[in-house]
Amino acid sequence: MDYSRVFAQAIDRLHAEGRYRVFIDILRNKGMFPNARCFHGHNGPKPITVWCSNDYLSMGQHPKVIAAMEEALHDVGAGAGGTRNIGGNTHYHVDLEHELADLHGKEGALLFTSGYVSNEATLSTLAKVLPGCIIFSDELNHASMIAGIRNSGCEKRVFRHNDLVHLEELLAAEDPELPKLIAFESVYSMDGDIAPIAEICDLADKYNALTYLDEVHAVGMYGARGGGISERDGVAHRLTVIEGTLGKAFGVMGGYIAADSQIIDVIRSYAPGFIFTTSLSPVLVAGVLASVRHLKESSAEREGQQAAAATLKRLMADAGLPVMPSVTHIVPLLVGDPVKAKRISDILLAEYGVYVQPINYPTVPRGTERLRFTPGPSHSEEMMVELVGALVEIWDRLELRQAA
Amino acid sequence: MDYSRVFAQAIDRLHAEGRYRVFIDILRNKGMFPNARCFHGHNGPKPITVWCSNDYLSMGQHPKVIAAMEEALHDVGAGAGGTRNIGGNTHYHVDLEHELADLHGKEGALLFTSGYVSNEATLSTLAKVLPGCIIFSDELNHASMIAGIRNSGCEKRVFRHNDLVHLEELLAAEDPELPKLIAFESVYSMDGDIAPIAEICDLADKYNALTYLDEVHAVGMYGARGGGISERDGVAHRLTVIEGTLGKAFGVMGGYIAADSQIIDVIRSYAPGFIFTTSLSPVLVAGVLASVRHLKESSAEREGQQAAAATLKRLMADAGLPVMPSVTHIVPLLVGDPVKAKRISDILLAEYGVYVQPINYPTVPRGTERLRFTPGPSHSEEMMVELVGALVEIWDRLELRQAA
Repeated sequence: MDYSRVFAQAIDRLHAEGRYRVFIDILRNKGMFPNARCFHGHNGPKPITVWCSNDYLSMGQHPKVIAAMEEALHDVGAGAGGTRNIGGNTHYHVDLEHELADLHGKEGALLFTSGYVSNEATLSTLAKVLPGCIIFSDELNHASMIAGIRNSGCEKRVFRHNDLVHLEELLAAEDPELPKLIAFESVYSMDGDIAPIAEICDLADKYNALTYLDEVHAVGMYGARGGGISERDGVAHRLTVIEGTLGKAFGVMGGYIAADSQIIDVIRSYAPGFIFTTSLSPVLVAGVLASVRHLKESSAEREGQQAAAATLKRLMADAGLPVMPSVTHIVPLLVGDPVKAKRISDILLAEYGVYVQPINYPTVPRGTERLRFTPGPSHSEEMMVELVGALVEIWDRLELRQAA
Repeated sequence: MDYSRVFAQAIDRLHAEGRYRVFIDILRNKGMFPNARCFHGHNGPKPITVWCSNDYLSMGQHPKVIAAMEEALHDVGAGAGGTRNIGGNTHYHVDLEHELADLHGKEGALLFTSGYVSNEATLSTLAKVLPGCIIFSDELNHASMIAGIRNSGCEKRVFRHNDLVHLEELLAAEDPELPKLIAFESVYSMDGDIAPIAEICDLADKYNALTYLDEVHAVGMYGARGGGISERDGVAHRLTVIEGTLGKAFGVMGGYIAADSQIIDVIRSYAPGFIFTTSLSPVLVAGVLASVRHLKESSAEREGQQAAAATLKRLMADAGLPVMPSVTHIVPLLVGDPVKAKRISDILLAEYGVYVQPINYPTVPRGTERLRFTPGPSHSEEMMVELVGALVEIWDRLELRQAA
């Protein structure tokens, strides 16, 4: 057994497919986002503009968030020092769970170290606690949901993306007495489309299924208080579990679920990914508390983001660039080839100081490789005009316009 | 299908077994650890002494750590804003990975959002990349290692705890050509015993197996620079992968592995739990950098911890309390019953202002329920004398001495 050879082959496959990943080494500048410093190749820092951050509303630099974190750092110190059960349950955690439960109109909420872990731990535990459970999963669900479903060991039925007819076919085909769970997202982050939540809830009612909605690319950004698409559509009360992240629009780090008290108690008590891990640093939790509270009151960030996304889509379309249809804040530009996507990204960074990461398989299906822009309230129209000018030049240089 | 009934039954089982968990709500006081404020039942805060923190060396309140986090907070803001591949790779992350690789004498290191995720992601990915891989796992391995092994879908052989004869039997029984991985811990955190690392490496050499060592309860605390038991024993170079945490002795949050560049590249490129998650907040990473660098230079914290553990063990043994054998900083006190363990813990908190969590199944096997004390350099001998006095009073009150 030659281990090194097997490992080398695994890496060679990535190079051969043009999807070997190089992490761009940056430091953002607090108070000046999307401006940042790039250390790529470690000759930096040189100034760049970040176009691919999931700190969608620039809350990661909001003065209230920074102040709350600084205060917590000096009050209680750096880390939690233990699991939630053993020394790592702070008053900040308790307060934030109340705040998040209120955000979604649920009885309770539960914090995890990340959105990935919240999906993996909750889905795998729910399906284990319900013997014979079948999970109905949208085909474009995030890797963390797929991991949770697979790790539960339960039966899985994959329905075509946002396809209600297919979902109903699959639901109708199963024994009505078996427990069922429909797992889906509100905003699909790589395409920017939105699930028909109310209609999926109708099907859940008809077939007595639980529902699990991932709102990581919507919380903070949609709904009058930032409760996500389920708040915007007035359907939050119909969902069994709403899952969200604290690391995107809320600008910090961590994940959570909101649900009725009984389900929160079950997940809290049975999920290994919740039980056996050091809890979120109270410094982070304090920052999130400030962020969630601010976005419950303020819509300026949400409005700024929507305006920026509309402007960038219009500028790209006017310039003849292949901007993909998106009804959200996400602006994907189709390339369709991993090598070209990386080449465009490399030119943008080296020649234009523009940082946008190429998105390749397995994050998106092969053949749909793209650049994914996330304009927000801090991106000016002037920045967008410059960006589109650069893209047009590169598209011409690489003779991509015909191919698109 | 009555979902609520199934969920209620799941919770009832915990109550019936006396292992329903109540999280104690606290805030530590930076600069005064182990002093803290308790909000239990939300009538607080009242002052308590924390005896069960995994912030083993009080680095969570170290001035260098606090200063580094404050500086990063004001330099770059709250969160990373993306995955390592998409906008979330900061210069702090790059620096910390170099620092951790150096700590273990390895070519590379890789950060994860937690120790749990580092174990789950690395073990599941390693075994998937090596077709036919068999993992040999110590029976007391942590839940996160078990999760990684199970989620890999590979063959597993469980060897009796620290039993070299049994491990060799299992290794010898398999096809020599199949890939093999021995997964174990250095310090087992609930008993405080230590694995025979060199002898396990001898077996790995003999049977051409890779080795994976979890050092989460040892990094920072053992070895001249805090490289763990593998540094203390001079065997770090013999291990394929060393895994550690940033949330215990280093005082902050997160997890990592250290290994050769090829393995780091494979895990970085293939592990969903690494790829599809927002990276650690740069504020946390900056704090860990300061902590790791300090503990590479300073042994005062390690010496203080060892002295405190020796004193507490001696005081407990002298008082006739059933302190379990431990050759490390961990001081477990056997109770053997979940209801009694919780009762003792409740009395300590309510009457003595002492916070030590009862440890029940599934964290430890049933029948070995215990209180687990983690004295450190900030716990004074006076605190220990008070603690032991309280324990003796409660042991007498509950007539436990005969049972022990």
